Amino acid sequence: MPSIKLVSLMVLASLATGQAWSQTALMKQAQGLFKPIPANAPPLAGNAATPAKVELGKMLYFEPRLSESHAISCNSCHMVGMGGVDLQETSLGHRWQHGGRNAPTVYNAVFDVAQFWDGRAKDLEQQAGGPLVNPVEMDTTEAHVVEQLKGIPGYAAVFAKAYPAVPDPITFDNVRKAIALFEATLTTPNAPFDRYLKGDEKALDANQQEGLALFINKGCAACHNGINVGGGMYAPFGVVERPGADILPPGDKGRFAVTKTVSDEYVFRVPSLRNIALTAPYFHTGKVWDLRQAVAIMGSSQLGAKLSDEEVGKIEVFLGALTGDQPKVALPILPPSVATTPRPKP
Amino acid sequence: MPSIKLVSLMVLASLATGQAWSQTALMKQAQGLFKPIPANAPPLAGNAATPAKVELGKMLYFEPRLSESHAISCNSCHMVGMGGVDLQETSLGHRWQHGGRNAPTVYNAVFDVAQFWDGRAKDLEQQAGGPLVNPVEMDTTEAHVVEQLKGIPGYAAVFAKAYPAVPDPITFDNVRKAIALFEATLTTPNAPFDRYLKGDEKALDANQQEGLALFINKGCAACHNGINVGGGMYAPFGVVERPGADILPPGDKGRFAVTKTVSDEYVFRVPSLRNIALTAPYFHTGKVWDLRQAVAIMGSSQLGAKLSDEEVGKIEVFLGALTGDQPKVALPILPPSVATTPRPKP
Repeated sequence: MPSIKLVSLMVLASLATGQAWSQTALMKQAQGLFKPIPANAPPLAGNAATPAKVELGKMLYFEPRLSESHAISCNSCHMVGMGGVDLQETSLGHRWQHGGRNAPTVYNAVFDVAQFWDGRAKDLEQQAGGPLVNPVEMDTTEAHVVEQLKGIPGYAAVFAKAYPAVPDPITFDNVRKAIALFEATLTTPNAPFDRYLKGDEKALDANQQEGLALFINKGCAACHNGINVGGGMYAPFGVVERPGADILPPGDKGRFAVTKTVSDEYVFRVPSLRNIALTAPYFHTGKVWDLRQAVAIMGSSQLGAKLSDEEVGKIEVFLGALTGDQPKVALPILPPSVATTPRPKP
Repeated sequence: MPSIKLVSLMVLASLATGQAWSQTALMKQAQGLFKPIPANAPPLAGNAATPAKVELGKMLYFEPRLSESHAISCNSCHMVGMGGVDLQETSLGHRWQHGGRNAPTVYNAVFDVAQFWDGRAKDLEQQAGGPLVNPVEMDTTEAHVVEQLKGIPGYAAVFAKAYPAVPDPITFDNVRKAIALFEATLTTPNAPFDRYLKGDEKALDANQQEGLALFINKGCAACHNGINVGGGMYAPFGVVERPGADILPPGDKGRFAVTKTVSDEYVFRVPSLRNIALTAPYFHTGKVWDLRQAVAIMGSSQLGAKLSDEEVGKIEVFLGALTGDQPKVALPILPPSVATTPRPKP
C-alpha cells in the first residue's frame, strides 16, 4: 500500500487530469482520516440526557445571573448564532477584563478530547464550571451559583423536573452537568465535507477537493483529523519554526501549566477546524484575523513548508467546506428575580 | 354617571360582600381605562413590515458587531427571555461604564407614547439609533455602523431581501427601521388582565380584583392606564412628596433636558406596568428592587397616600396579573466576519 503522502500526490496529479479513480482514492483516504458529524447529540458519560435536563442547561447557558455582575453568561463569549464564539482576540469578562486566551467555539466541543486550549478540563462538564469562578470571566463562586439559583424561585420547578426524585437538586454539579448536556446539542452536522465523507463526491467541488488533497498531502491532517478535523490531540505550536512573539508570546506556555512537564512547553490542544471560516480570529492569542494567513503560519511553523498563495487559497476553500448546519436555538425564557434574589455586583 | 372614584369605592365595598353586579361594574370601569394587548405586532407609521425586514431587524438586534467593542448588542441591555431588561440598576455599557438610567423593557415599548425615560425619541425607530452612538453604551457612530455592516459580506443579501429594488440598502436609517420592526413584534399579549379586559371575569381571582379596584380607586390609574398600563403620558416624580435623593437624585431632571421647560423638571414618562413583576429594579434610577416598596413609594410620592401593607400587597398581586405571554424568539444566525471586516476596539 502506498504511503498517505504518495497517494495524495497521485491524487493531486490526477485531479488535474480529472480522472474519476483518483477522486475515489481521495475520498477513501479522507474517509480513513476523518469522520462526519453525527445527526444527533452524542451521549455524555455519566450524564444521561433528558429533554428537561437539556432545557435546564439551555436556561443556565443564557443565564447572566450566574455571573457576579449578572451581565455575563456562557453565551457572552460562546455565542449561539455567531459560530459559538465572540469574534474577539480574547474575551471581555468581569469589569471588562480580558481573558488569557481566545475563546474556543462551543460548537462540536463535545467531540474534542478535552476542553480549553491547554486541555485542563477533561470534558464539557468540567469546563462549564471554569469560567463561572474565573475572576476575569464571570467571577462568582460555586457556593454563590447555588445561592443565586435558589434565590430565583422559578428555578426550583425547573431543577425538580430535570432531576426528579433528587431531594436538593440545585447543586453546582447539576449546574455543570445540565450546561454540558445543552452544549452537547450544539453540533454542526451536514457540512459539505460531511456529505462528501458519506460518499457524495459532488459535495466538494474541484477546488475544494484539491484543497483537501493538499491538506492531507502537506501534513495538516497529521494533527487535524478525526470527527472535528482537529481537537483530538496536543501538539507544540512552532514545532518546526516559532512564529513571532505576538502570535506565540513566551509567557503562555500552554499545557505546561497543566502537566508541569517540560516537553509540554508551548503545547496546545490542536483546535478543531470545524466552522473555522466563522470563528476568526485564530490561534490561542487570537492575533491572526485572516484565515489565509493562519494557514500560511501553520505551514511554516508546524510543517516547515512554505505554502504558495495558490496552495493556501485552495486549502482555505477546502476549510470553507467544514461549515455545517448552524444550531437553531430558541432563546429560553428565564424565571424572574424577586425582592430577595441576590443582586448583581457590577 | 358617578365619578371613577365613587364607582371604585362602591366596587370595593361590594367586592367584600361578593356581589356579582359589582364585579361587572369593576370590569366595565377597567375596560374604560385599559385596553388589552393585541395578538399581533402593531404597524409602524412610515415603516411597513415584511418578514424579511423583521428578520433583518432581529439579526441586527442581536448583532454585537454594531458596537465599537463588538461585545454589546441591543439584547445586552434589553434581553429577550428576561423581561426585555437586564435586571441592573443601570446598564453596563462600553468599557463597563454605567448608563445614566435604568434600562426600560423593550417588551410592548411599541405602545408607549415615546421612548426613553424622558421621551427624547418619538418612536422605536428614533430610539434604536440612540444606544448605538452613546459613548457609555455601544459607542459607535452612524457612519461606522454602515461601514461595519458593509464589511460583513453576508449582510448584503439580507438587506437586499429586506429592501428590494433599493440600490444601496445598508444605511443607518434602514438599520433603525429594521430594528424597530423587530422590536414591535416583542409584545406580551394574553396576560390574565388582558383576558379579564376581554370579558373573562375568572381571569383575575378575588385578590387580584381587589388589587385592581384599589389601583383605580387610589388613583394609580390616573397615570398608569391605556394599553400599557402606563407609558402614555409624562408626570413629575414626587408630585406630592419627593422621595429620597437615592431614588430621585437632584442631578437628573428628566424631561427638562429635552424640553428646557421648568415645569418639566423631574418629569418622566410614566413607565408601563406590563410585566412589571419581571423587570426589577424599579424607577429611572433602578434603586428599588422590591415591587412592594415601589408601590408604597408611588403611593406617598405621587398620591400622597399612605397605603397599608394589605393594600400594597393586593396591588402587587394585581400587578402580577400584568405578566403576559413572553415572546418566543429563535436566535438569528449571523453572517461571519471575514479578513477585511472592521475589527472590534474593546
